[in-house]
Amino acid sequence: MTPDEANPVLELDETVHQRIRLGILTVLAETPECTFTAVRDQLQLSDGNLSRHLRVLEEAGLVGIRKAYEGRKPCTWLTLTRDGRTALRRELTALEHLVTRLRATDPLSG
Amino acid sequence: MTPDEANPVLELDETVHQRIRLGILTVLAETPECTFTAVRDQLQLSDGNLSRHLRVLEEAGLVGIRKAYEGRKPCTWLTLTRDGRTALRRELTALEHLVTRLRATDPLSG
Repeated sequence: MTPDEANPVLELDETVHQRIRLGILTVLAETPECTFTAVRDQLQLSDGNLSRHLRVLEEAGLVGIRKAYEGRKPCTWLTLTRDGRTALRRELTALEHLVTRLRATDPLSG
Repeated sequence: MTPDEANPVLELDETVHQRIRLGILTVLAETPECTFTAVRDQLQLSDGNLSRHLRVLEEAGLVGIRKAYEGRKPCTWLTLTRDGRTALRRELTALEHLVTRLRATDPLSG
């Protein structure tokens, strides 16, 4: 791997790559619709922290948020949008490039 | 992959995972010592942006910074510390888990 080749991190989009947002998108990719509490618990987040990152993802058009009632209980449903799926797929490809490059780096391969 | 399994993003450390810092560590892993300008150019950063992230990495003990003169020209040398190498190796393992999990996610595998 020569230093002249474009570094794989240049392919990464911070909106998607950020650790918690990447986690949210990963969870949503695995289930067609997922509640706020399910995502929060799986990623071990506070309500506030999850809300903050959901706002970024919603503004970028990557996640849809739908509030509804289940009986008398309010419930927040989250879905990955088509753009969200595309963005996650792009991140995945970039991460694979990065992993391949790092694995080819001698002192890390051991 | 069941939702009960720990999400791979929980293994990620934000100090290392952040896009630019991950890029810096990747470049430094590939060369025993690397100048400030070489890293800056390969990652297409401004001086200020690179300095800011180097400070975070230096404070975490992941990168060493050594200022010296090459003839009359001041030069900043950057090295990955032993802890930096360990942290990058850990990030790499976590990314591999994430990639494997995402590749197993049906709507993304196509």
